[in-house]
This record gives sequence, C-alpha cells and structure tokens, in this order.
Amino acid sequence: MAPRALDGSADWPTIQVDLGDRSYDIEIGDGVLDTIGQRVAELFPHSRAVIVTDDNVGALYGNRVRASLEGSGIEHATVCVAAGEPSKSFSTLEDVVTQVLDAGMERGDVLLALGGGVIGDLAGFAAGIIRRGIKFIQVPTSLLAQVDSSVGGKTGINTAQGKNLVGLFNQPQLVLADTSVLDTLTDREMRAGYAEVAKYGLIDRPEFFTWLEDNFEAVLAGGSARAQAVATSCQAKANVVKADELEQGSRALLNLGHTFGHSLEAAVSYDSQRLVHGEGVAIGMVLAHEFSARMNHCGPEAAERLVAHLEKVGLPTRIQDIPGQDFTVKQLMTAIAQDKKVERGALTFILTRGIGESFVAKDVPDSAVREFLELKLTH
Amino acid sequence: MAPRALDGSADWPTIQVDLGDRSYDIEIGDGVLDTIGQRVAELFPHSRAVIVTDDNVGALYGNRVRASLEGSGIEHATVCVAAGEPSKSFSTLEDVVTQVLDAGMERGDVLLALGGGVIGDLAGFAAGIIRRGIKFIQVPTSLLAQVDSSVGGKTGINTAQGKNLVGLFNQPQLVLADTSVLDTLTDREMRAGYAEVAKYGLIDRPEFFTWLEDNFEAVLAGGSARAQAVATSCQAKANVVKADELEQGSRALLNLGHTFGHSLEAAVSYDSQRLVHGEGVAIGMVLAHEFSARMNHCGPEAAERLVAHLEKVGLPTRIQDIPGQDFTVKQLMTAIAQDKKVERGALTFILTRGIGESFVAKDVPDSAVREFLELKLTH
Repeated sequence: MAPRALDGSADWPTIQVDLGDRSYDIEIGDGVLDTIGQRVAELFPHSRAVIVTDDNVGALYGNRVRASLEGSGIEHATVCVAAGEPSKSFSTLEDVVTQVLDAGMERGDVLLALGGGVIGDLAGFAAGIIRRGIKFIQVPTSLLAQVDSSVGGKTGINTAQGKNLVGLFNQPQLVLADTSVLDTLTDREMRAGYAEVAKYGLIDRPEFFTWLEDNFEAVLAGGSARAQAVATSCQAKANVVKADELEQGSRALLNLGHTFGHSLEAAVSYDSQRLVHGEGVAIGMVLAHEFSARMNHCGPEAAERLVAHLEKVGLPTRIQDIPGQDFTVKQLMTAIAQDKKVERGALTFILTRGIGESFVAKDVPDSAVREFLELKLTH
Repeated sequence: MAPRALDGSADWPTIQVDLGDRSYDIEIGDGVLDTIGQRVAELFPHSRAVIVTDDNVGALYGNRVRASLEGSGIEHATVCVAAGEPSKSFSTLEDVVTQVLDAGMERGDVLLALGGGVIGDLAGFAAGIIRRGIKFIQVPTSLLAQVDSSVGGKTGINTAQGKNLVGLFNQPQLVLADTSVLDTLTDREMRAGYAEVAKYGLIDRPEFFTWLEDNFEAVLAGGSARAQAVATSCQAKANVVKADELEQGSRALLNLGHTFGHSLEAAVSYDSQRLVHGEGVAIGMVLAHEFSARMNHCGPEAAERLVAHLEKVGLPTRIQDIPGQDFTVKQLMTAIAQDKKVERGALTFILTRGIGESFVAKDVPDSAVREFLELKLTH
C-alpha cells in the first residue's frame, strides 16, 4: 500500500536525504506504517527484522508492524524498553544490544526503531554498534521524532555529564513517518514537537514561520496541514544535514534554542513532569532571540513576535513558566559549558538577525551569557 | 625526534593506510613513542590529550608518553583500566567514557590508546562514541596489536554472546608502533603475536612465510628483523583493508584461523591461563589448513609445513595442546555459529589452496565442519 494522497491530487512526496552512498528516503503520510513489511522486503531481501520499541508505543503499534512484516514473510523479534528519557542510558543500551544478539540478528538484518526520540536515539545507536553496524529504519511515532530526531543520523544516550554526549552519527536506510499515529499523542507532546517545527521557520524559512502563524491550529489538529508541516520540516533538516553531515559548521544551526534549552533540562534533572525537551527548546529559542537583541544583532520585535506565537500554541516561553523556581545562574552556566557545542572553551551559540535569519556565533563571551541569565532569572 | 634508522642506511619508512579522507600513517621503529607529543601538536594543534591505558602498560610507559606530551606543551589526563581481556566489556567502556568526559575532553581533543589489543579495541571504540567521535591515535605496545589490531579500524568489546560482537569501524588518525617496547613482552605474548605475523604469509605472501621460516628467531629477538616483520605485516594488512574497509568481502581473509580460534577461546571461557588469542589463531590456522585438505582444496603438505614452523616457534598447533580437555563438538559448533562471520545461517570460512593461497569460502556445510571437528577431538 502506497502512502495515501493527502490532498486528493497526488501521493505525498518522498523526501530524499542526499548524502552520497548514505542517502535515504523519508516517507511521510497517513498509513505508511502498514507498508513496513513491503519496504523491508524491497530494501533488504531475505533479512530478518528486530523491532525496538517502548512499552507505550509497542502496545499501540507493535501488532500493526508485526502484521505488516508477517504479510511480507519476514521473520521478526521485538525488544521492548521502558518508555521515557531514562532509557537513554548505558544500561538500557547494553540490554537492547544483548537482546538483539540473543535474537540471532546478523549483519544483514534490520533493526526497526519504533517510537519517539528516545527510541530513535537509543536504537539507532544500538544498530550502529551491533556487529559493527546492522541496517536500520527509523519509524518515528512522535511529532518531535518525525521532524527532528529521526532525520540526520544523530544517535546517542545520556550520561551524568549531560545529554547525548555518547553516541554516533549513524544514518538510517529509511525513515517511515506515519502522520496518523500522531493522533495518539497527548496535547503536551504534540506542542513540544511543534517547537521543533517552528524552529525550521526561525532558522532560515521566514515564510514558513508566517505560514505556521496562520495555520498552527490545523497543524496541531492533523490532516494535510500537519503532514505538510512535517514534510517541510524534514526537507529543511535534510538540506542542513546535506550541507554539513558531521556538524563541522552550519549543522549547528539546528541547535537554535538548544544550548539554553539543554541547560534548563539539566537544571530540572531531566524531570519530564517539569519540562520536556520541546518545551526547553521553546524557552531556549525565546532566550536566543532575546540574547541576540541584547547583543545588538536584532531588535526586540523578533523575540516579541516569537513569544506571541508560542503563547498562542500553548508553549512556555520564559524560565519562570517552568514549575519550581530553584534555578541558579551557576547551574545553568555549568550545563552550558559542558554542552557539546563548546569548542576550546569559547561558547558557540546560534543567534539571529531576525525571524528566519539565524547564524552560528563563535566566541560568545561567557560573561555576556552570564549577565543575560542573571537578568532573566531576576525578572 | 624522528624514528631511528633501523639498518643505518635510512629512516624506517612510514606505511600509509590509504582510505581516502580517512587515510593515516603507521610509523614503526625503535623510539617512536617519544615523538608522540610532537605528532599530536602537528596533527591536532591546540588539542588536549587523554591517555587510555591499562595498569601494566601505564606503569611501564605512561611517564614517557606524558613527558613527551609535556615537552610539546599538551595538556593531558590519564584513564587506567585493569589489564586483560575482561576489560573489553560494557562496564569498562562506560567507565572509560565517563572518565574521559569528566576530564573535560571535547570533540577536537585526542585519545591515545596506549596498550595491547584490548586497549586498542576498547579505547578505539570509546573514541568513536564520545561526543559522537573524538580524534584518536593507536599506540600499540604488544606485537599482536602492532601487526593486527591497531591497524584497520576495527574496535569493539565482548559480550556473553561472543567476542567483538559490539563495536565500530573507527579508523585512527595515526598509529605509532614503537618496536623497542616489545622487549618487555613475555615470551608467550611475543609468540602469540607472532602467529598473526605468520598469518600474513599464509594469506597471500608465500615469500614472506619462507622468510619467516628462515628468520623467526631474529624476529622474536628484536632489532631490524623484528621491525621488518612488523612493517611487512602492517603493509599486508593495509592493502587488505584498503580493498575492503567494511568487510563486505575480501577483508574476511584476515580471519584466517580465527573462526576455529575464536571457538576455542570461547570454549575455555577466554581463560588466558589456558589459551591466549594468538595461540587460538595458531591452532585455528592449522585447523583451517587441515580442513582445506579434507575439503580437497590442497594437499596435506601445507598443514604439515605450517605445523613444523609453528612448533619451532613454540606455538601450540593442536586442540590437544590446550591444557584441560573438556571440549565438545557441540560447544565449538555453537561458538562457530554465533561467530559474526556467519551469513544467513551458512558458514563462511577462510580456506586455502596452499601456503599463501587463502580464499573466502562461503556456504561451507556445517556438517563438514562438525565431522572434521569430531575427527580432531578424538585424535
């Protein structure tokens, strides 16, 4: 079954991530989940498959994926981990690797990462190290994963020192983003993913940001506007990744809002009751725009316009929106300094000259960041 | 200080591993260890260095490496693990990664893998996943590591399912093989490494095997014959790796003797009192030649010549040479089936048509292997 046409006129286009011999497709649309058996059989004839998922997503979609595999005569096994960020750990990685090996998977077999960002990062990492690399397909089931973490090959786990400090660049061989599965997300998860959608407008697509201002309700509601937003986001990310796969330079633009956002996530000890990743990104993007204004790269109106939009969406925009007020400047600065985007002690930030005009700023003085955060924490 | 000339006539040549943008040099000779600070400063200006070593090698050579780094003004830290194969584990990997992150190493910094094969495999894997990849230099201190494991980018750890089932292809940026440090190896370690040297003759260099038959005592004793054997081995491996970096085909030739050898190592539960890797390879190479004769690929004289040479060297040549006789065919076959060189259930073996005429044999019937092992275990 091909992905269903979204507007009645044509099949939804497939987006290509163009990386030479590591190129792959992203297929987006309602129902692509049920094509997985057929796609595995086409891409990897005679291979077996292991589904890596979490207990929430596995319960919702595991049977559909297994039915599709069986329909194409593909032997399969399932490895299930606990849902949530704590599974991005060395111990869960070891569990997954061990179970995949116990299932007898060989180098030509394929791992299906069925879940949100946690599963994509964890299982993509596992796929890269099992027998020094087995095939893998990302099957993202959250908005965040569909528009961000499943595309571009970054995989990894967290350690006590910070998020994603251990991992690999490991490109999947296919991404299947079924937009209909987003219907089972909570409003909070949907909004959190939306922060990453808005990010692509802020990076370099001002017309997409304007479109989102007009259409965000339809995007959150589902149907063709949502699929269009996912496709535009994936295309934007694919372009950035193509230009700089291994993050030597311009790929850092994708971190807009993430340095501040990660520091807030670290400050709440990754307690998702208080803050989920996309919410941290939302606040972080506002901080990046405000800090850009303070550094005279743009006027205050960019941040004001961003705040107005994110508030309409229902996303937090200020540090004070996070429940519990125990943040200190020192704590945030420590997390920022440990962030992997630090180079030789100088701070690298993604700043902006206005909506859709972001740029990589190296050698940002940490004193300027500290003063800015002092201001934000006392307001 | 440049590597010292080995024969008085010229500097010992540097061997290049030609892998496009992942190419690197292997520098071989007495004293190259003391050039490490200079080489790090040339290759990675302004970087810091973290030495990963084990308690034996660190005690012997840690100070020399640190002195060389300090001589070039390079900040450094040291991470030390327990010597021995059990350190190729998930838990030691996590320890190393955590300590390197705690030392504040960033993406542009360099990891120095100072030790034998265990350290090279473990630390090379760690270097590949810390911040999704930091720089690394192999500084092999055993003969086995100098001629085999430090070259070609295979890194990894062991799991309950077998050896090296988890890891990466991660090429170093430089290999520094100081042949003078081999003087501190035990006779047993030296002989075990010699098995891998002889392997290159058996794969496709019959003239090198003949040279070894005439010169093995000088190779084991040290000086220019040893350095020549290391250089020839590294060149042989570099050629094979260049032809097939990711082991899609011909690289498997490097596994000559290893499928049988690994099964013996697994059968003694990697107890190095009973069997070290090179000894397993020695017996495995004999078995591969005998099995080739049984499969009518060559006459019995190839195995006889190999046995005669390995016996002179003082290496074991028969399963019966391993202390303790508790092997079963079932046990060995299970280990062989789990070996990562299995493809879609068919057994892949490196067989030979004679000394220096090895080839990759796919679809070897497991019944033939089983019958052969039954014969070997009852003789």
